[in-house]
Amino acid sequence: MKKQINIGLLGAGTVGGGVILVLKQNAAAISHRVGVPVKIKKVYARHPEKATNLDPDLAVTDNVDELLNDPEIDIIVELMGREQPAKDYMTAALKAGKNVVTANKDVIAKFGNELLGEAAKQQKDFMFEAAVAGGIPIIRPLKACLAANNITSIMGIINGTTNYMLTKMLQNHEDFDKVLKEAQDKGYAESDPTADIGGLDAARKLVILASIAFNTRIDLKDVYVEGIEKINIRDIEYAQELGYVIKLLGIAKNDPKTGISVRVHPTMLPMNHPLATVNDVYNAIYVTGDIVGETMFFGKGAGRMPTASAVCSDIIECSRNILHDCNGRIGCTCYEEKHLCSIENIYSPSYIRLLVQDKPGVLAAIASAFGSQNVSLNNVIQKKKVGNLAEIVVITYGVSEYNLRMAETTLNGLPVVEKISNVIRVEDNTLE
Amino acid sequence: MKKQINIGLLGAGTVGGGVILVLKQNAAAISHRVGVPVKIKKVYARHPEKATNLDPDLAVTDNVDELLNDPEIDIIVELMGREQPAKDYMTAALKAGKNVVTANKDVIAKFGNELLGEAAKQQKDFMFEAAVAGGIPIIRPLKACLAANNITSIMGIINGTTNYMLTKMLQNHEDFDKVLKEAQDKGYAESDPTADIGGLDAARKLVILASIAFNTRIDLKDVYVEGIEKINIRDIEYAQELGYVIKLLGIAKNDPKTGISVRVHPTMLPMNHPLATVNDVYNAIYVTGDIVGETMFFGKGAGRMPTASAVCSDIIECSRNILHDCNGRIGCTCYEEKHLCSIENIYSPSYIRLLVQDKPGVLAAIASAFGSQNVSLNNVIQKKKVGNLAEIVVITYGVSEYNLRMAETTLNGLPVVEKISNVIRVEDNTLE
Repeated sequence: MKKQINIGLLGAGTVGGGVILVLKQNAAAISHRVGVPVKIKKVYARHPEKATNLDPDLAVTDNVDELLNDPEIDIIVELMGREQPAKDYMTAALKAGKNVVTANKDVIAKFGNELLGEAAKQQKDFMFEAAVAGGIPIIRPLKACLAANNITSIMGIINGTTNYMLTKMLQNHEDFDKVLKEAQDKGYAESDPTADIGGLDAARKLVILASIAFNTRIDLKDVYVEGIEKINIRDIEYAQELGYVIKLLGIAKNDPKTGISVRVHPTMLPMNHPLATVNDVYNAIYVTGDIVGETMFFGKGAGRMPTASAVCSDIIECSRNILHDCNGRIGCTCYEEKHLCSIENIYSPSYIRLLVQDKPGVLAAIASAFGSQNVSLNNVIQKKKVGNLAEIVVITYGVSEYNLRMAETTLNGLPVVEKISNVIRVEDNTLE
Repeated sequence: MKKQINIGLLGAGTVGGGVILVLKQNAAAISHRVGVPVKIKKVYARHPEKATNLDPDLAVTDNVDELLNDPEIDIIVELMGREQPAKDYMTAALKAGKNVVTANKDVIAKFGNELLGEAAKQQKDFMFEAAVAGGIPIIRPLKACLAANNITSIMGIINGTTNYMLTKMLQNHEDFDKVLKEAQDKGYAESDPTADIGGLDAARKLVILASIAFNTRIDLKDVYVEGIEKINIRDIEYAQELGYVIKLLGIAKNDPKTGISVRVHPTMLPMNHPLATVNDVYNAIYVTGDIVGETMFFGKGAGRMPTASAVCSDIIECSRNILHDCNGRIGCTCYEEKHLCSIENIYSPSYIRLLVQDKPGVLAAIASAFGSQNVSLNNVIQKKKVGNLAEIVVITYGVSEYNLRMAETTLNGLPVVEKISNVIRVEDNTLE
């Protein structure tokens, strides 16, 4: 029986520093729960003082091989971020017969399959609970707690920056640019916020969730991505009037008829939906299974300590596996051939905001344009005057993306239509 | 390597029948996820047709020893309910070297320690994810996903019957007796609803959650329990006016200074609290850890299929352990001496509804009575006339139970106070 679990930590930045703090602060509890102490044997860091400022007893090196080749190190914890050299180091660690824990969503989304394959070959653990939704337990719940279910749908608020911005736009009636500035000032948005705002960050996480949920390998290029750049304060206010809130959702659905659809886009949700009240930088993942029905997992999706909580839970689980000699107990769960639904076949109600000429017969012309493309309307509302034009908001019943786009083309051809200002998908069972 | 996992199922009632259905319906997925097929080898049931109606191929017996003594059976799944003979059968199964999965909260709350001890001795699994909050993953998340945390607080809506009733009282402005009748008609409340309404069912689940969260053995007698019998439609309406909703919460807190408090009682929650929007028969458990911060787990807390989902997740995890020869991987996690906080030291804001004489100086007399017992008031509102009396609602700042009770005694001694109609604790950080 081993007397201690030894960790080699790659990276002592925000999350790496958090892990150093947690393993020190809660050492007694973790030791009890694992059965033996869990210690960081060595840290690989470019700036050694980042590690030693948090725990002066730590051994730090700038030579990664000292960790990868140390036979006493049981688990390599990779918290360097970015694709390379993180991916190569993890591969080397697995090949050297070590278990690997990481929070690196970029690497998992792109190379998860390869790394899980290597882990299976070596019968080692490759764990990444922290890669999606920070402190919220979701990978392990999907792989274990909901494993009796065929998951039919995942809808997640999995990007804190955009959720903070949309919350502030709604609560303070402030426009996009102002809340973005505010988010940057508070450190919730990066100076280059493109990956968050454009939906790419959410798409990477969704790829990981969908692959696990549907037991098939989803790639980033399978994801349809729209960001929140086009969301106007008016859309938010109209949504509120209609009983909806706008959230940037990652949506992955598995429809036995049409296949798997995976998309990130702004979405209108009924105000009484459990995701609708998830505000600020909080994240939540709403999972529907054929047996369990609806479940939701809520918490902090980012930040040093929440993310460190998830990393350390993997360290604890991996340590338990080491002590019971069962690493690789749960490996890659992708055993299905994927069958993707083309974007044209994605079916959902929609909200359309249009600028039209303010004269009699316009509503009828618009309704007729929708009708010509088999789009049924639930609601057509003339909202307000904009100069000598009128703003109109339309809510459709469930419609295929193909028919919706045809309707947009038809509308753009109408002389009375000045422009289609925005189109936002609606998740509302009552309109399907 | 084993070619198949064999289950012995005790009980083919509501949940047992659900497990039969899940293992049949999702057999392919479960077989993939475990690595080998998982089959029910034999069912112990008093009414064999209950099992064979769901799956005609099942072998059924009324002799439990045929399961307990069958060396081919790997896991005994106990879904008979009640304390006995369920507890004796589980003990016998563990002693016979079998793993045990159960949904029996009564047995766990009372004999969990003993059964986990026997499981540890035998190096077998004893799992009970379904015993708390039905389909919601919470036991495994606490034992694994949040294992790096010292849990500071758990607040749970863990009884569907009472949550349904409180939701309907609020939504339909109906009184207690009417919604109880409605809940019984819909099958959400039993013909004898005492255990649900009185809080005992929630207390049993809270005992299990608190024991795991605080790594110490909490007993049912450690729990302070109040039910929802005294909740009046007026309390619900006043709460709404004040920005609160009333929920029956199981609350377990671990304060390093005063100790562990474990209680079930109606609680006013701010409307923007994530638990406040958990309605109808849904359950949710709000867990705060020192590292992760706030998390919440939401879903269906009861019903055949959600509960079967949890039971089958345990079966899958146990099967994985069997295949990797690591049963007993996570056993009993109670390693701390418990240090309970006496009820007098529990500290929280409170709502008090009083009936008083309708004359000048009454508010001052009441405020002074509170003040004499060191109870600070956040709000004193004269609500409405009731005959020639007046109803007054008071919200206090944080106050110890001891001081609150002293204040009640003082109030009862005032000639102007006709009666204290209700006292409800408030969970509101802004008042602490």
